[in-house]
Amino acid sequence: MSVRDEFALDFARTERIGLEEAVFAAGKSPAQIDAILAAAEERGARFLVTRLDPDRHAALTYRDRLDYCPVSRTAFFGEARRVEGPARIAIVAAGTSDVPVAREAERTLAYQGHATTLIADVGVAGLWRLTRRIEEIRAHPVVICAAGMDAALPSVLGGLVAGAVIAVPTSVGYGVAEGGRAALDAVLASCAPGIAVVNIDNGYGAACAALRLLHAARRLTEAPR
Amino acid sequence: MSVRDEFALDFARTERIGLEEAVFAAGKSPAQIDAILAAAEERGARFLVTRLDPDRHAALTYRDRLDYCPVSRTAFFGEARRVEGPARIAIVAAGTSDVPVAREAERTLAYQGHATTLIADVGVAGLWRLTRRIEEIRAHPVVICAAGMDAALPSVLGGLVAGAVIAVPTSVGYGVAEGGRAALDAVLASCAPGIAVVNIDNGYGAACAALRLLHAARRLTEAPR
Amino acid sequence: MSVRDEFALDFARTERIGLEEAVFAAGKSPAQIDAILAAAEERGARFLVTRLDPDRHAALTYRDRLDYCPVSRTAFFGEARRVEGPARIAIVAAGTSDVPVAREAERTLAYQGHATTLIADVGVAGLWRLTRRIEEIRAHPVVICAAGMDAALPSVLGGLVAGAVIAVPTSVGYGVAEGGRAALDAVLASCAPGIAVVNIDNGYGAACAALRLLHAARRLTEAPR
Amino acid sequence: MSVRDEFALDFARTERIGLEEAVFAAGKSPAQIDAILAAAEERGARFLVTRLDPDRHAALTYRDRLDYCPVSRTAFFGEARRVEGPARIAIVAAGTSDVPVAREAERTLAYQGHATTLIADVGVAGLWRLTRRIEEIRAHPVVICAAGMDAALPSVLGGLVAGAVIAVPTSVGYGVAEGGRAALDAVLASCAPGIAVVNIDNGYGAACAALRLLHAARRLTEAPR
Amino acid sequence: MSVRDEFALDFARTERIGLEEAVFAAGKSPAQIDAILAAAEERGARFLVTRLDPDRHAALTYRDRLDYCPVSRTAFFGEARRVEGPARIAIVAAGTSDVPVAREAERTLAYQGHATTLIADVGVAGLWRLTRRIEEIRAHPVVICAAGMDAALPSVLGGLVAGAVIAVPTSVGYGVAEGGRAALDAVLASCAPGIAVVNIDNGYGAACAALRLLHAARRLTEAPR
Amino acid sequence: MSVRDEFALDFARTERIGLEEAVFAAGKSPAQIDAILAAAEERGARFLVTRLDPDRHAALTYRDRLDYCPVSRTAFFGEARRVEGPARIAIVAAGTSDVPVAREAERTLAYQGHATTLIADVGVAGLWRLTRRIEEIRAHPVVICAAGMDAALPSVLGGLVAGAVIAVPTSVGYGVAEGGRAALDAVLASCAPGIAVVNIDNGYGAACAALRLLHAARRLTEAPR
Amino acid sequence: MSVRDEFALDFARTERIGLEEAVFAAGKSPAQIDAILAAAEERGARFLVTRLDPDRHAALTYRDRLDYCPVSRTAFFGEARRVEGPARIAIVAAGTSDVPVAREAERTLAYQGHATTLIADVGVAGLWRLTRRIEEIRAHPVVICAAGMDAALPSVLGGLVAGAVIAVPTSVGYGVAEGGRAALDAVLASCAPGIAVVNIDNGYGAACAALRLLHAARRLTEAPR
Amino acid sequence: MSVRDEFALDFARTERIGLEEAVFAAGKSPAQIDAILAAAEERGARFLVTRLDPDRHAALTYRDRLDYCPVSRTAFFGEARRVEGPARIAIVAAGTSDVPVAREAERTLAYQGHATTLIADVGVAGLWRLTRRIEEIRAHPVVICAAGMDAALPSVLGGLVAGAVIAVPTSVGYGVAEGGRAALDAVLASCAPGIAVVNIDNGYGAACAALRLLHAARRLTEAPR
Repeated sequence: MSVRDEFALDFARTERIGLEEAVFAAGKSPAQIDAILAAAEERGARFLVTRLDPDRHAALTYRDRLDYCPVSRTAFFGEARRVEGPARIAIVAAGTSDVPVAREAERTLAYQGHATTLIADVGVAGLWRLTRRIEEIRAHPVVICAAGMDAALPSVLGGLVAGAVIAVPTSVGYGVAEGGRAALDAVLASCAPGIAVVNIDNGYGAACAALRLLHAARRLTEAPR
Repeated sequence: MSVRDEFALDFARTERIGLEEAVFAAGKSPAQIDAILAAAEERGARFLVTRLDPDRHAALTYRDRLDYCPVSRTAFFGEARRVEGPARIAIVAAGTSDVPVAREAERTLAYQGHATTLIADVGVAGLWRLTRRIEEIRAHPVVICAAGMDAALPSVLGGLVAGAVIAVPTSVGYGVAEGGRAALDAVLASCAPGIAVVNIDNGYGAACAALRLLHAARRLTEAPR
Repeated sequence: MSVRDEFALDFARTERIGLEEAVFAAGKSPAQIDAILAAAEERGARFLVTRLDPDRHAALTYRDRLDYCPVSRTAFFGEARRVEGPARIAIVAAGTSDVPVAREAERTLAYQGHATTLIADVGVAGLWRLTRRIEEIRAHPVVICAAGMDAALPSVLGGLVAGAVIAVPTSVGYGVAEGGRAALDAVLASCAPGIAVVNIDNGYGAACAALRLLHAARRLTEAPR
Repeated sequence: MSVRDEFALDFARTERIGLEEAVFAAGKSPAQIDAILAAAEERGARFLVTRLDPDRHAALTYRDRLDYCPVSRTAFFGEARRVEGPARIAIVAAGTSDVPVAREAERTLAYQGHATTLIADVGVAGLWRLTRRIEEIRAHPVVICAAGMDAALPSVLGGLVAGAVIAVPTSVGYGVAEGGRAALDAVLASCAPGIAVVNIDNGYGAACAALRLLHAARRLTEAPR
Repeated sequence: MSVRDEFALDFARTERIGLEEAVFAAGKSPAQIDAILAAAEERGARFLVTRLDPDRHAALTYRDRLDYCPVSRTAFFGEARRVEGPARIAIVAAGTSDVPVAREAERTLAYQGHATTLIADVGVAGLWRLTRRIEEIRAHPVVICAAGMDAALPSVLGGLVAGAVIAVPTSVGYGVAEGGRAALDAVLASCAPGIAVVNIDNGYGAACAALRLLHAARRLTEAPR
Repeated sequence: MSVRDEFALDFARTERIGLEEAVFAAGKSPAQIDAILAAAEERGARFLVTRLDPDRHAALTYRDRLDYCPVSRTAFFGEARRVEGPARIAIVAAGTSDVPVAREAERTLAYQGHATTLIADVGVAGLWRLTRRIEEIRAHPVVICAAGMDAALPSVLGGLVAGAVIAVPTSVGYGVAEGGRAALDAVLASCAPGIAVVNIDNGYGAACAALRLLHAARRLTEAPR
Repeated sequence: MSVRDEFALDFARTERIGLEEAVFAAGKSPAQIDAILAAAEERGARFLVTRLDPDRHAALTYRDRLDYCPVSRTAFFGEARRVEGPARIAIVAAGTSDVPVAREAERTLAYQGHATTLIADVGVAGLWRLTRRIEEIRAHPVVICAAGMDAALPSVLGGLVAGAVIAVPTSVGYGVAEGGRAALDAVLASCAPGIAVVNIDNGYGAACAALRLLHAARRLTEAPR
Repeated sequence: MSVRDEFALDFARTERIGLEEAVFAAGKSPAQIDAILAAAEERGARFLVTRLDPDRHAALTYRDRLDYCPVSRTAFFGEARRVEGPARIAIVAAGTSDVPVAREAERTLAYQGHATTLIADVGVAGLWRLTRRIEEIRAHPVVICAAGMDAALPSVLGGLVAGAVIAVPTSVGYGVAEGGRAALDAVLASCAPGIAVVNIDNGYGAACAALRLLHAARRLTEAPR
């Protein structure tokens, strides 16, 4: 049995659910990733690769064919889509250390052609930093918020903006915050109603939740069924 | 200090974030709940009460003034909004035991005037039950899915519908499933991208996430993009 | 062996550490509590009883000799101290459901003769509620803050006040918040520096931490520095 | 005391329970593993080695005498049995990253002479991938299913196949899925009845459970006792 | 929406996977259970009800139509199948307190027409109790073993019998054993290879795993190998 | 977007809450830390850097401009404040392995100009070590106590000193003590009343809690409001 | 199958391991307990019953034949052994709430004929209480110590006495201490070497560990060394 | 402050509790360990060092003055005591991977002059291995048993030997067994009464518990007080 038998690409995903398939590189060997990219190439398909750490990137045969970003550990394979229009999605990072997760969301949305606004280091310990930029955030109908440690920012944001808030807890922190469970539980238990949550460090998932929302929004404004 | 000093109602919440304040009854005494309703009455305000179990409901002075639903443990205080239009939000309950949580979402949305479609007992152990109704589900741009135990349904749904999927893990189950952590972790770890999650048993929160999405959708279609 | 052998009262605690002994009633039988109060009476000692639920209170022989508060589940035995002076300690309850824990702190401090200011329902989901009262809070050098669910309030407070902040996570909440671990971890992981934390629902302990602080403050201003 | 005293090989295991002893290499030093192989050699015994990572393999004196597979981290020592007959056991890997665990099961069964069919990357997020191969899977009376993250596949499979389903949760994933507890709990809490579970990443154990089943099947079809 | 819309019975389950649908009563209201039984009656279907505690049983309209066993909390609705043949499945309860879980398995198998042998109180703390009965146990190709606390029995059994071993950890115990996690982890981590595990207290699930095994066994002996 | 956009320094923190901002280096890249120091330099600001491990320190451009302490992993940037005596804060390390955490507190306070007394290896397993130094500890109105493993020292100290006790559980230990949860829970559950706790290994936070206390003490001795 | 088949008494346990069998009543029905006592009566055997709460005791047919202690929830069936000799085992309860667990150990040892000394309420928060009685404790070669909350007492004791220390963590406490895990982890992580630990609230187990020790002591002094 | 101030050796420990102080090397720097050894040397004291991994050992100035064992990671400093016979303590390792922990106990006892018998690889999955050696084990009044994974061996042993059983759970294992919690909980929840437990991987602690037992035994056989 060859490596080719170890994967089955879902090229029809876009038609089915509006999201292109992406390759989660973390649990895969370079040989597997190369084989997947080769299969994509044969079909002329594009691909987003996530969780591709620099070492694994360096080990790929397709290394030089990728548009790679080491901060977000994402790579684009194939022709990029043009990022257009005014940003409708704000990506807020509570602290500087949350930026890599925020950038994973940013890159995922860019790969799909969506402009975003990244706003960093507005954690609630210095509320003026948030207050200073809250109007800018509010101008976006959708807000993705990456926050670690106590993840208090999504709760505060949720009380200040009327649009959709998608929280990404991050594994930034130590002691009780290590691994991100404290941040996750805080956003799930938020006293601000209606905050949607994705897995710890899952910037990609937050971006996909935003893409689903955009899809729903398009349909909501079409004629009723 | 009197009971009146123990709460501060947020009547401006609707203007600020588009969601009316609701009273979470679980941690409050009947005296506190009655005082809150009296304060609302003085201002001519309406109120949604959640997590009001039958015993506590029976102990309220305002008991007979409430439109109470024992399955969802919700109550409406004040004039009801008319539920209008075709349902744009599907509420899917994986099993019969997940219905109370689904109904909390249904009642929250009804209180705000939104029609919904409740689809129950379509868990993946008998996939035909889901397949039979998938087109009906797909017709709704937004899907709320309540699921306990292994919560496999949101993952399967996420691969079949393109719209927004908001998962509510429930505490239905025993052994490793007791309390709902297994269901929560399963939906957060879902292999289907972009599923948004709220706290265990939080039907109210899922409804609020949907309301935020509707708000975002209105704004997304207003401005140019 | 009699019940009298099952306890050893620490009447010298006040001289040693400035805190009078209190009886934690939760794990004790009415017979044990009565015996403890009898021993105190023999010595003419006063006593604070905590975690005394109404059923156990009703079962005590000393029932009518106690100044009992069912909300905080505390009782005073013996002559009360006069509560004096302007309040130097603010007790902030994030939500209405956190009031019982806040009142346990309030009663403990009142028992020791300290005035406090109770400020309730200023959680961060409606930031205006906090903003409206922040100057009042800031006027107190010491702030005790009881908060459940995501416990975001201590983080926000910690960024707004310069004085001591003692956080008491509460077990208010459900799902991931049940039992108070989420609130505890959030305050421990707070991005606001220098927040001191006590056990979940431990209003008594927060009051004692404040009493220790007052003791330290007296000594800090006595000696040269 | 020498290394020889640190192990006691169970050469009679086959007679007793139909399973040959295997060496779990993870917690053993190369010296211990070499001594075990030497003891086996003396008796002319064969051996399966599991959890032998490449570094430890490279450090063995018996290195070149082993039939080693780095993907599954297994090694065969001694004469191989011929793999015969049509495959009666399907080994299904939910995702590409679950393949190493699936291959550990495959190698264990091959070592015992059993043919298997490996079917990879049929996770439920793209249900068509499973549907496409479900008849092939159903053709096997026994199905081993390795799945990480939310491990929804065993639940879906359990509703589609009538034969035995042995689930192996894997540690593939991050955030709440890290370490495999989320996958394990999901399969244990499965709404599909009768799914048998083994420890996280325990492809060897899943294979042994299948071997026990084959043993039981042989006896079930013999004359009644 | 009526209670009838809250469930969707899976009458085709038997054809599909060889297991009849059962009603898990724990999370359902008496009204829901009665409605399910009425629907079954209309179709002339039989039903197994599990986790039906005596209070809920007493509240059912169909109460007197059920063959109810309070120890196992199971009920049969409709005509019973004849239990036939020599017992091929042994059900072993480690301690007396594990008997209710063992009896849930026994009743589930009886409902499907399978004879079983129940062997109780053979925990390893008095090994002679197991030794005395080991030949009797070994005479059954399939062994279900219910064990709480440290659940050491399945490990010992797994080293003594060659057939299939299905372990059901139970929630019997206190301290670290409370809830059954310790027992569950012990059986999953068992040093005896090939033990299959189901959820804590899931006697029903263990029986279903045995039924799947019997199904597989029939097919394994049909086709050539 | 440049690295400069990834942080927003809180230079007004001192005026607001009396604590200067510090840089938590653990989750930041050398490029980010260098950019933060450059921004500080432009404004002539001083900075405390925490959790700066030797490797990351060596990678900084500003490396030689920092007063770096590898034991506590702290660095001072900019002009040091004069440390003035006498010490009013005792820093007690239960064991030798707790010294790095104690030194983080010591350095943080030194950076702010406060003298401290470090007392190490006075754990309760040899009570004479504590007894020998208890008068010295008692002479300080504020006591910071770093303790890992079972963290019994803060409980004993809390019964012997009347001043403020701030406990820092440490991650020193293995088995159940690994990561510091056991130590954290022990200090939170302490039978000695009024012990204030900060996150595991958070020497910096303990120092900040002491600084807040000093601030409160100054205000408590001022004229009443 | 009758209730008689649900247990297998281990009358030979005394010869085998020197400990008589005891009945753990918590998971057993009154019918099961009565049947066990009837079986014992037939053989003229004595029995110790543990975890027999007052309600279950009241429901027994054998109720009046038992020497029952509601504090420790233990009962003696059959002729009592005479308690003889000077007490060689001290049973120390850290707080008044730990007395029931201490008394379970006391009763178990009394049942076997061993005198003990119970010393209560000597927790470390008031070290003088322990100091006052330490010589009395030291006079016993074996010390059983029941402690909840932070369980700091066994660590302090372990540094003061040279004999055997058997710690029983108790479930006394709330918040992080609820259920006794914090106490258990503290005693396991104790910085005092050689403390032996049993399960939470397991006074019976601590007594048995002491009985094993006495057995070992007899043998150690028999043979030459 | 110098490294010398970071420790306070407990040279009086032997007189006080009969156990010599040992140095736990895991959390200490080579400089700290060297300073401790230098202090010991000055006083002519001996020392046992535990948890000294090979890298840290190699970094010590005192490296060549130590009698170092890399398997158990222990070192003896100073003159060795003569180990005198016959062995009264059996040290049983369930599996080959548990040997390092067993050897830590063996070395600790050897350092104190006690002979022991090491019996390895007698886990219950092959009960004959235990049965073969049970008489040899029984000949020792005290049994230390190191076991990882499901740790079923101490339960079985506890039912077969009358003497003291001290269980050391080990961190050997993966999945649910990783870190040793499963093994720890299993031994604490053991159905065999009177098993004493120490922390995970704590071979040193098990040895100290045995030393305390020997001390108690000597006193028990002296004249009564």
